[in-house]
Amino acid sequence: MSRLLSRRDINFLIYEWLDALELTKRERYAQHDRETFDAVLDTAAKIATDFFAPHNRMSDANEPYVVVENGSVSIIAEVKAAIDRFNQAGLVAAAQDESLGGMQLPTVIDKAMMAYFMAANCATAAYPFLTIGNANLIITHGSQAQVNMFVKPMMAGRFFGTMCLSEPQAGSSLSDVKTRAVLDKCVEKDGGKRAYEDGYGERYRLFGNKMWISGGEHSMAENIVHLVLARLPEAPAGVKGISLFIVPKFLVDVDGCIGERNDVVLAGLNHKMGYRGTTNCLLNFGEGKHRPQGEAGAIGYLVGAPNQGLSAMFHMMNEARIGVGLGATMLGYTGYLHSLDYAKNRPQGRAPLNKDPLSAQLPIVEHADVKRMLLTQKSYVEGALALNLYCAKLVDDEKTAADVAAKKTATLLLDILTPIAKSWPSQWCLEANALAIQVYGGYGYTRDYPVEQFYRDNRLNAIHEGTHGIQALDLLGRKVVMHEGAALKQLALTIAATVQAATLSRELETEKFANQLADTVTRLLHVTKTLWAIKDVSRTLASATTYLEAFGHTVLAWIWLSQLLTVEKAGEPATDTEHNFYRGKRQAARYFYLHELPKVNAMLDLCDAGDTTALDTKTEWL
Amino acid sequence: MSRLLSRRDINFLIYEWLDALELTKRERYAQHDRETFDAVLDTAAKIATDFFAPHNRMSDANEPYVVVENGSVSIIAEVKAAIDRFNQAGLVAAAQDESLGGMQLPTVIDKAMMAYFMAANCATAAYPFLTIGNANLIITHGSQAQVNMFVKPMMAGRFFGTMCLSEPQAGSSLSDVKTRAVLDKCVEKDGGKRAYEDGYGERYRLFGNKMWISGGEHSMAENIVHLVLARLPEAPAGVKGISLFIVPKFLVDVDGCIGERNDVVLAGLNHKMGYRGTTNCLLNFGEGKHRPQGEAGAIGYLVGAPNQGLSAMFHMMNEARIGVGLGATMLGYTGYLHSLDYAKNRPQGRAPLNKDPLSAQLPIVEHADVKRMLLTQKSYVEGALALNLYCAKLVDDEKTAADVAAKKTATLLLDILTPIAKSWPSQWCLEANALAIQVYGGYGYTRDYPVEQFYRDNRLNAIHEGTHGIQALDLLGRKVVMHEGAALKQLALTIAATVQAATLSRELETEKFANQLADTVTRLLHVTKTLWAIKDVSRTLASATTYLEAFGHTVLAWIWLSQLLTVEKAGEPATDTEHNFYRGKRQAARYFYLHELPKVNAMLDLCDAGDTTALDTKTEWL
Repeated sequence: MSRLLSRRDINFLIYEWLDALELTKRERYAQHDRETFDAVLDTAAKIATDFFAPHNRMSDANEPYVVVENGSVSIIAEVKAAIDRFNQAGLVAAAQDESLGGMQLPTVIDKAMMAYFMAANCATAAYPFLTIGNANLIITHGSQAQVNMFVKPMMAGRFFGTMCLSEPQAGSSLSDVKTRAVLDKCVEKDGGKRAYEDGYGERYRLFGNKMWISGGEHSMAENIVHLVLARLPEAPAGVKGISLFIVPKFLVDVDGCIGERNDVVLAGLNHKMGYRGTTNCLLNFGEGKHRPQGEAGAIGYLVGAPNQGLSAMFHMMNEARIGVGLGATMLGYTGYLHSLDYAKNRPQGRAPLNKDPLSAQLPIVEHADVKRMLLTQKSYVEGALALNLYCAKLVDDEKTAADVAAKKTATLLLDILTPIAKSWPSQWCLEANALAIQVYGGYGYTRDYPVEQFYRDNRLNAIHEGTHGIQALDLLGRKVVMHEGAALKQLALTIAATVQAATLSRELETEKFANQLADTVTRLLHVTKTLWAIKDVSRTLASATTYLEAFGHTVLAWIWLSQLLTVEKAGEPATDTEHNFYRGKRQAARYFYLHELPKVNAMLDLCDAGDTTALDTKTEWL
Repeated sequence: MSRLLSRRDINFLIYEWLDALELTKRERYAQHDRETFDAVLDTAAKIATDFFAPHNRMSDANEPYVVVENGSVSIIAEVKAAIDRFNQAGLVAAAQDESLGGMQLPTVIDKAMMAYFMAANCATAAYPFLTIGNANLIITHGSQAQVNMFVKPMMAGRFFGTMCLSEPQAGSSLSDVKTRAVLDKCVEKDGGKRAYEDGYGERYRLFGNKMWISGGEHSMAENIVHLVLARLPEAPAGVKGISLFIVPKFLVDVDGCIGERNDVVLAGLNHKMGYRGTTNCLLNFGEGKHRPQGEAGAIGYLVGAPNQGLSAMFHMMNEARIGVGLGATMLGYTGYLHSLDYAKNRPQGRAPLNKDPLSAQLPIVEHADVKRMLLTQKSYVEGALALNLYCAKLVDDEKTAADVAAKKTATLLLDILTPIAKSWPSQWCLEANALAIQVYGGYGYTRDYPVEQFYRDNRLNAIHEGTHGIQALDLLGRKVVMHEGAALKQLALTIAATVQAATLSRELETEKFANQLADTVTRLLHVTKTLWAIKDVSRTLASATTYLEAFGHTVLAWIWLSQLLTVEKAGEPATDTEHNFYRGKRQAARYFYLHELPKVNAMLDLCDAGDTTALDTKTEWL
């Protein structure tokens, strides 16, 4: 049994629940079938197990450091070896067009594939994850020349990518980005134009500091392609004056040959609680270190139109947010499987009614409270994985659904589900990791067992790519009201369809759950109106986090009801193993409806009352 | 402003809320007054700030290790230096009789004093904490000779103490302790009796392995006094056959001189996620390493009667459990103060209605969601500290109340509140630490700021000294039903008195909270009956954790209502500072009633239904 991911669960989600094979009827995926999908998942499982998981603890214990002699970043060799395997298998380009050397896989298969690596070693997986996001952005918003010069080497595994948004004074508030970009007046040199000048469009020179840059410096790739937010001269203040630039670590000529070192340097590594294997950097742009006197400035190339950088970057951010959610999910998932394995094998204690101290101890999985902790984890991590893959399928629909209406539906659902897909696993799959530690007891608190690392690693996910609070503002402040509430309406309709189907179930309990969900959605819609009826946006948004969490649990309840319907459709399975699998799904769904969904009521009460206890608290009272 | 602990809050809790000065009317504390209490707290604050806090991060980054050359344990020098200061100030004996060189302070002052050290450096504070618990046990259950030989040097700061319960195969299940103790037949040697033979009673030789022994090995004290659970020959199986022994690292003669090395050796250090500064050891007893051939066995001395060891050890365990709760509280508390300080000084973002990107950024404390995270922390940590100090006051009442009835009342309350005082802070002050990280954002996730360490350190507290699940079984399986429910009745009466007083408040909201609490207690009592009406104890106990958590929140709501009454009694304060302090208390109480207590309903619904979803889950379904 893999302790990374249950393949049976993946198969259930992809083939039975999301019917991914239906995608092969679409032109873009026509060359695929179950066999090619399975082959990719097999490859992923094997590489993740053999090359990513084995050094997960090692790279945590031996985090990257700056070599004093030459300022380079030292990373244990296993990281590059693993990424090389990933790249050699073509996985970095799994979802890309064949014209880019890709496999043209559906996103839902691509994400299921990535899930293995995130479970095995989130820190090492972060390098290809960022590279893929970077490439997708340039493909969407960059020029053909930029795709040729930067994306193709990334897809060949030669270059890695980063995203450079934050600055020391501008984290959640991107409005305050200060990095400057000025048009380079010095393209003529040595009596002629430099070869790389026209290929990418005009050159700029960038000056500023970027903070929290994952994968920002290392020597594992020939080049690092930074995507950098900066301001042009005379740009409007705030978010409307931010442009996006490609700033490579090394300049590249039109033949793809690596040229001189660009003026972007490592100013320091951050030392984190977890995710230690991913370098996380403060980068200085344009301090002149690698340039001749008077020629400071990191050479950069504008992506898309001036001052439109933030919306382009959000293309990558939205993808990254769902990816962060998937990463959080997989840390929870592997923690669940590890603690389940441990619980089956650790003998301790006896049944409450067994008073014979000479009888054999039970495996702890037999204790009610350990079962509770395992079932809770299962309901969190399998629910979260289902949600993440559902979102991946929406990306496929957005791109390839049969008609415009279906595409639009997918976009609306994706818009409204993104903050949930990011925040819910970050909160609840971290809680799953806490429970995994608890199942192990004292052993789980030691670094001899992997669960404490999962817990440390996972704590990052509610912070990066938009904090929990930022997701809440995005949901309540933007997503549920945009297009006159169209996204919320679409979600409500989609949930209603599931509820409708569930009320027709032969099983009384399923019908009961359906009614419970319908009531919660009704309350949620009402509360949304109530909150927006408040004529002071500060007071409305004071409920944002409570609203987000209530919304998240409601969405997950829907995801579980939907899975339950698929289980019912499967009928009575032929083998014990299959029977147990479906029974487990039913039990996790049941757990979610009995133990989790009822938590929403207290949250909705608070929202309904428009509670502002925190907002009304003066700083001096704290 | 201290970032360890609010002295204003301590003063409020001790003097205004618990009226600790009333204790000075009792004979035992007659020599004390506000001045002596304050002097101890001042001393604690100073030593904790100057000697414990400064190396908190350092000992985390440089955890104890075994020196290969000689097998000794190396610990950074700052740890011993800090403990020496603590001991030199007489704090290790603060609560002890004057005859033992103690200050004879009330427990409530002693615990408030310890709170500073737990906030400053929980890992270093663990050494004196364990020593004090060890001494208290020997004083209560040991002989006068044992007190003279072991307690007095501990109170003088020369010896440190440990508790040795767990073994690799016996953690939560102490019934399975295997360590053996046999009467030593070799007391005659070298032609005469050994001097230390008669002073302590009969000698035993112990053989076995003890796991998770905090402070189990180091060279910071002249000697380490282990309290060890072991079985005598022919002892009954299970918990009824466990005896308690003193096993010193070095034998001691009647003059208190250190003699030969005892046969207890370090087998290995555990490497933990947090609490790294405290050595945590696997100890081998009786493997013959420090003994002449054929004379293996760690010399030990029986404490109390044979086979009564576990109940004696639980004297220490109950104290340790409240201490663990206080430790969890203080990690939460210092995290709150750190994040509050950060939030006041970190500029980021603007108010929702401010669309001017050129205006100055706000300190993040002004954002509604940051305020929410701070107020939540405040309600958790100040509530938990109040509960812990309330329990400390109960210890004083148990010892020194005017009459037998009052003592009995204190014992009953202490019995039923111990699992809450241990588990609630371990769960919710850890959550406070998670919120403290979130307030810091990305910075909080780095090791450059202290909050990530608080979070790692605090994760231990739901595990050691009886896991969360064990506390739940203790509460539902034992405490609420013992003596025909006398402890639960006593608690209900005590809460009812607070509710009664609160319904007479001039403030409508206080009356509303009182009714809310009364309703919850009524439900809790009803649910207790419902659960015990189930005729299958396995099914009853399947709800134990949910019951514990509902119970805990109810208790904390009572603690907040009680504090609120004290605030109301104070009337309108004279200064702004005082006004703000009381306003903060009101707001935290309000937060608890609006945001926290309502969570209990969903839990009580589950208990009321006797839900057994987890229990009914077959292992094969997971």
